[in-house]
Amino acid sequence: MSQHLYDQDEFFQYYIKLERQIKGLAGAPEWPQLKAMLPDLNGLSVLDLGCGFGWFSRFARENGAASVRAIDLSEKMLDKARSMTNDDKIEYERVDLEELKLTENQYDVVFSSLTFHYLANFPALTNEINKGLKSSGRLVFSIEHPIFTAPSKPGFVVDEETGRKFWPLDDYQTEGLRITNWLAPGVKKQHRTVGSYINILLNSGFRLTDFVEWRPSKDELIRYPSRESEVVRPTFLLMAATKD
Amino acid sequence: MSQHLYDQDEFFQYYIKLERQIKGLAGAPEWPQLKAMLPDLNGLSVLDLGCGFGWFSRFARENGAASVRAIDLSEKMLDKARSMTNDDKIEYERVDLEELKLTENQYDVVFSSLTFHYLANFPALTNEINKGLKSSGRLVFSIEHPIFTAPSKPGFVVDEETGRKFWPLDDYQTEGLRITNWLAPGVKKQHRTVGSYINILLNSGFRLTDFVEWRPSKDELIRYPSRESEVVRPTFLLMAATKD
Repeated sequence: MSQHLYDQDEFFQYYIKLERQIKGLAGAPEWPQLKAMLPDLNGLSVLDLGCGFGWFSRFARENGAASVRAIDLSEKMLDKARSMTNDDKIEYERVDLEELKLTENQYDVVFSSLTFHYLANFPALTNEINKGLKSSGRLVFSIEHPIFTAPSKPGFVVDEETGRKFWPLDDYQTEGLRITNWLAPGVKKQHRTVGSYINILLNSGFRLTDFVEWRPSKDELIRYPSRESEVVRPTFLLMAATKD
Repeated sequence: MSQHLYDQDEFFQYYIKLERQIKGLAGAPEWPQLKAMLPDLNGLSVLDLGCGFGWFSRFARENGAASVRAIDLSEKMLDKARSMTNDDKIEYERVDLEELKLTENQYDVVFSSLTFHYLANFPALTNEINKGLKSSGRLVFSIEHPIFTAPSKPGFVVDEETGRKFWPLDDYQTEGLRITNWLAPGVKKQHRTVGSYINILLNSGFRLTDFVEWRPSKDELIRYPSRESEVVRPTFLLMAATKD
């Protein structure tokens, strides 16, 4: 069973104050590039894995999706999502993604934002997603970039000689548990390499169509200078793949 | 025009003493995984880009390839390759890969080992390779991993607190020239991100089929303890793609 991180009071109190929770998709810098990977949602059947407050599920319906099944592990997240939604074509449901079972050929689009890097058994899920997708259906998702999740001590280091900031990469090839302090102490993530993500998708019967290591544009760097750290090393990896 | 690195005397004198030059493919730790990406070469028409001393070209012929066109920028490399080869089905030729033009539908397999990270204009080459391949033909290649080429100051750093070794990653998203001191001072490489390599292939009409961030096996780590550094961060990225 996955960690009930988002049901911990301390974590949740910080989490709801993040810009991406207050402003929704508009508060997520990587959203424009992720959105560009989506097909026209009009009339499509959508599955949202790790739906959080339901921002994407509502976006999908506002853009014509016929129905959305929205899944999360956290009751708190789902309660908040339900309170923000007035749409009987969005079905919120509590399921542990590590135990998700899908019926064949149900969905046109499977979407997931910043969720898969919490899962220990990702291949089991991609097999289910591939089964659940219709032929040529699309999986669109974001994760924390493996360069971001790898280090034993994540956090920038400044080179005393040059003043340059660098990311202390180590343990890149050692996959598995990483414990970090993000919003609350003891947050558990699962590090895997870029190669593992790609091969898990290919082995599940997907064809890779999109691969974006998110970085800010020049305009964004002027408006948000702190995003310069994203040029040093990426935080987000966005991918899309179609069922073969 | 690309750098005539391999024609510089100082560089060449060091280069020919590398294990992978003395022992050939058997001296390259990543070769078994790269070999596994190749189809059965029997009867196939092969193009070898950056052939060096011709180790792969001769391997291809020994494994049944009908013919091999082997290209390199360095006259010294080609002279050495010719002196080691007695096979009129291997044609060695001096061409700058940045200016390579191929005839349509000529090759079943295009191979390249540790060459593409020297090229400034990679998309022009992948377009040519795609054109030159027969339908469903395969491109198999290795490069220095973008994590390896990215840093402004490549070289491990030891964390004084923990004694752990890490790789000082910076400038990952800043593509372009990197000047390093490898065998000789002032070696010029072109850094590009993992995302760029993948998207250049997809945009040239390839389908990605294999992606391996090389790491040593447990057995290799026992026999060659210094390869532990490859667990900290990868040096080699191996990929294969088929013409769509």
